[in-house]
Amino acid sequence: MDLEKIRHSLAHILAQAVIDKFPQVKLGFGPATSTGFFYDFDFGDATITEKDLKDIQNKMKKLISASQDFIQRDVSFEEASSLMKGQDYKLEHLTKLKNEGENKFSIYTNTTFTDLCAGPHVTNSKEIPTDCFKLEKLAGAYWLGSEKNKMLTRIYGIAFSSKEELASFIQRRELAEKFDHKKLGKELDLYHQDDLVGKGLILWHPNGTVIRDEIEKYVKETEFRYGYKRVATPHITKGDLFKKSGHLAAYKDSMFPPMIMHDHDHTDGEESHGEEYYLKPMNCPFHHLIYASRKRSYRELPLRLAEYGTVYRNEQSGELSGLIRVRCMCMNDAHLYLRYDQFEEEFKKMLQMYIEFYDTFKLKGYRPRLSIRGEDNKEKFIGDPSIWDKSEALLAKALDEAGVDYYVGKGEAAFYGPKVDIQFKNLMGREETVSTIQVDYLAAEKFNLTYTDESGEEQPVLVLHRAPLSTHERFISFITEYYGGAFPTWCAPTQVCIVPVNTDCLEYAQELKNTLTAGYVRVTVDDTDNSFNKKIRTATVSKIPITLIVGNNEVSSGTVTVRRYGVEAQATVTKEQFIADLQKEISDRICTKEPMGSII
Amino acid sequence: MDLEKIRHSLAHILAQAVIDKFPQVKLGFGPATSTGFFYDFDFGDATITEKDLKDIQNKMKKLISASQDFIQRDVSFEEASSLMKGQDYKLEHLTKLKNEGENKFSIYTNTTFTDLCAGPHVTNSKEIPTDCFKLEKLAGAYWLGSEKNKMLTRIYGIAFSSKEELASFIQRRELAEKFDHKKLGKELDLYHQDDLVGKGLILWHPNGTVIRDEIEKYVKETEFRYGYKRVATPHITKGDLFKKSGHLAAYKDSMFPPMIMHDHDHTDGEESHGEEYYLKPMNCPFHHLIYASRKRSYRELPLRLAEYGTVYRNEQSGELSGLIRVRCMCMNDAHLYLRYDQFEEEFKKMLQMYIEFYDTFKLKGYRPRLSIRGEDNKEKFIGDPSIWDKSEALLAKALDEAGVDYYVGKGEAAFYGPKVDIQFKNLMGREETVSTIQVDYLAAEKFNLTYTDESGEEQPVLVLHRAPLSTHERFISFITEYYGGAFPTWCAPTQVCIVPVNTDCLEYAQELKNTLTAGYVRVTVDDTDNSFNKKIRTATVSKIPITLIVGNNEVSSGTVTVRRYGVEAQATVTKEQFIADLQKEISDRICTKEPMGSII
Repeated sequence: MDLEKIRHSLAHILAQAVIDKFPQVKLGFGPATSTGFFYDFDFGDATITEKDLKDIQNKMKKLISASQDFIQRDVSFEEASSLMKGQDYKLEHLTKLKNEGENKFSIYTNTTFTDLCAGPHVTNSKEIPTDCFKLEKLAGAYWLGSEKNKMLTRIYGIAFSSKEELASFIQRRELAEKFDHKKLGKELDLYHQDDLVGKGLILWHPNGTVIRDEIEKYVKETEFRYGYKRVATPHITKGDLFKKSGHLAAYKDSMFPPMIMHDHDHTDGEESHGEEYYLKPMNCPFHHLIYASRKRSYRELPLRLAEYGTVYRNEQSGELSGLIRVRCMCMNDAHLYLRYDQFEEEFKKMLQMYIEFYDTFKLKGYRPRLSIRGEDNKEKFIGDPSIWDKSEALLAKALDEAGVDYYVGKGEAAFYGPKVDIQFKNLMGREETVSTIQVDYLAAEKFNLTYTDESGEEQPVLVLHRAPLSTHERFISFITEYYGGAFPTWCAPTQVCIVPVNTDCLEYAQELKNTLTAGYVRVTVDDTDNSFNKKIRTATVSKIPITLIVGNNEVSSGTVTVRRYGVEAQATVTKEQFIADLQKEISDRICTKEPMGSII
Repeated sequence: MDLEKIRHSLAHILAQAVIDKFPQVKLGFGPATSTGFFYDFDFGDATITEKDLKDIQNKMKKLISASQDFIQRDVSFEEASSLMKGQDYKLEHLTKLKNEGENKFSIYTNTTFTDLCAGPHVTNSKEIPTDCFKLEKLAGAYWLGSEKNKMLTRIYGIAFSSKEELASFIQRRELAEKFDHKKLGKELDLYHQDDLVGKGLILWHPNGTVIRDEIEKYVKETEFRYGYKRVATPHITKGDLFKKSGHLAAYKDSMFPPMIMHDHDHTDGEESHGEEYYLKPMNCPFHHLIYASRKRSYRELPLRLAEYGTVYRNEQSGELSGLIRVRCMCMNDAHLYLRYDQFEEEFKKMLQMYIEFYDTFKLKGYRPRLSIRGEDNKEKFIGDPSIWDKSEALLAKALDEAGVDYYVGKGEAAFYGPKVDIQFKNLMGREETVSTIQVDYLAAEKFNLTYTDESGEEQPVLVLHRAPLSTHERFISFITEYYGGAFPTWCAPTQVCIVPVNTDCLEYAQELKNTLTAGYVRVTVDDTDNSFNKKIRTATVSKIPITLIVGNNEVSSGTVTVRRYGVEAQATVTKEQFIADLQKEISDRICTKEPMGSII
């Protein structure tokens, strides 16, 4: 079954059904999409509403059941014009094709309907399952996408290979809407963007900052155990650094414009006037300068320099979206400086650490991709092809030796080298790169990165670039959706909400809060005048992982009644037991339930 | 005893002594300084070297002992010109004074020497103690400070009220030179600045980053207990935010120049072209936006928003120095949003937390200063004088009620409000502001910062700005010198160095290292082929707080021999005991010895 053909044929059948109901309609284009199909119509004086879609859909089912053949023919301009008579948009397109030199025009006919179309289509409408598609909605769309043209009406449909896939898509989409990080970001008070600050620049509120800080703390601890050392470098630099690194030559369009510094200090002859400073698009060159700041011995290698570094990209404002695409992002970046013979061992250790990270977050279903040069637009990939060959082979060998099941992504390399990208699926099933590892033969040469070997000779190092957990912005948007906003206790903005059943229990609740706070637990007491049920609801809406109910019984017995988010059962335990269990859950970073994203 | 007069008179006696040895010398200026005096000379064809200083100093002592009277007279231009005959620089200056409208010229005469001078001076040279001054060095200095003029030779002297003070100054200066953070920064590999990046922009190496990270961790923990919530805001913003805050009007000269953004995305009509983005000089407006991002209830107050925020100041390149004056600095900034009636309580809590911080770092001898408006240049201090009165009174009252011994610094306020600055002395005895607290009545109005009170009314909040530990850059430079580079274990870059006595002990050392690393201790093993003594010396030079010696005895008995930096005694304890003690020392952040800076 060829889904592309089915989707495209459904577009034709949609047009056929619409013409049946609106004979005067004029047709625009009607292609297949990645989830179904659409067709653009000019309804003239007629009006169509979402209510009409059901009728049209039923008509489509009848047309499908009518066993229509889809027949292709190549015809002359004259014949095509005659077939498209009265269809102004089709005629306009036909003339355009002719003016571009075409002299043969492909048409497809299914009984009463003929369209100017390159195909492909099913052979007979019987190949289209009638229960696997659905008309969705109406939208406005300019003819040829230009706001100078007339606004047409687009009818969208979705179509899949099976009923189950259609249902699954609809379910995923509902979840994706319900748990959209932009929606949850507001509901959970994680962050906002502000008109006064500018698009794509995130102001992290206390709740969002907790998640950032907890991730950083966890990652720093883990990387400490793996022998990483942390550095901190400026967000800005003179252009000189990025001239040396090659960014200004290869990457300037993605960078923020420069600040032109005019030094006030006219008695100081050292600094030239009009020096250009840039926000950094990448951290690499700064780490290289630290490496090169003194002589390095072979004893120091591997040297692993890591930083939560903020990088800036001048993304087009139309492309900015929530936390997914921003202009300023913070990533746990590291650069490893190795002897060549240390590469495989180090690569394996790195993968091991990555898997440790994924396990902690309960991230599943990842696929490593070896991202290499493409055969097309080779000029996109700078540097000596023999070095590309060498680096691509090195990564492939390391993946093989690590026994990793990977696939190859042609054309997915960075402009300066191949990488291993680890791909995860978001709620909509779309792949996102969460982690990367990249080999770099060139940095050593550009920045004179060497070490003194056992015999006193200077040797170039091999540089690895790596980022295990994307940027804070992308990763937090990803896990917010993956957890449906219900974060594991260790990184939840508020970990515990204490609900006193009546005012007599308030003192006990406050004391418990103080004890937990002293142990660095993020805890609130709901001391409002709200009803008990309202208090429970408030904690649930905020997706707080643990709610402690304290009533007279709990006060007199020194216990707490523990409710967990999304769990029906509750249990009464002593305060001491609760605190001990909680501290362990937090310090071991235990995820007590399967994340929503791992089970759909 | 008037030190200013003594220093100034010593300058004249210096000139008198120099003329005695070099009769042809021509005199520039010779003022008192904050530590002594200098005089500028043009030696013509004669040469003077540092060796001559001793002779000159001896001659000065004789001249002092000669009981010379210092006699002042006001004379006419003609008489002054005649007295200064042959002294070209003096004559030039005299003419300048005359051209400025002077008609009376003050001269001072001590027996053979007459100088054009406004004074004041001692009455008789006998008032100058002969054992409290010292000629120091020669240096070049342009006449009138302009490189267009001739380079004169400046002779520097230091002078104090007593022999003890002179000795103490010399000792402090030796310490300050020995423990200068720029020198230690290099020796301990803490940071560097790079020509490719630009002046005043710090690249923190792993060792310096440990100190930053440990301070942040400690402060975040402490502030969590005090109810602070953390936020994270962008380093850049559209100019709009700083227009609203008033920074662009009042502070633009100290800010970095703008980046002019031309959006690539021409189909997006929302963002205007040529938008100006700025690096932030302060964090305040970002925190205000977070406060104002939703309605706040009285139940949420005090809301304490804290951030390790990086701010940018366009300092003149000539003024940049080490970590003390930089262009990009990171500070633990917080803004507290209070009901007016919460101010005093909150102020007290804040002081209490500050003292907790100082105690942990063993910082001593601090003095709170109430920094208010000055009577001069009132235009420097913006805003309604009645609000200034109110805020100054509020801070004074809070200090009084907290029972704090403070002094008043007139003219030391920020341009937008009064503050409490807490002053510490550096190794040279100079005062530095480490902490500030500031009240702000205006922010609520500018940013519409309100809360809903118990009766549902909107009320303005009172804003406090505060920074307890300066910027990372200044504070780390301060404590580096204060500790003489020997950091307490909890924040030392390397905490433990294990020195195996022979290769048989290496495995034991490595195992110990692994155990300590798993407990997040920063530990190295010296596995070089160096001699035992060389290894101990290496650890000492790096000022590592704890060195563990493991020899055959230690291996067989499961012990370690512990040496502490700067302590003669060593002790042998079991591994387990050592680890338990160390973990406690680190987690309690114990300073096992008095910092060098607290005992001088």
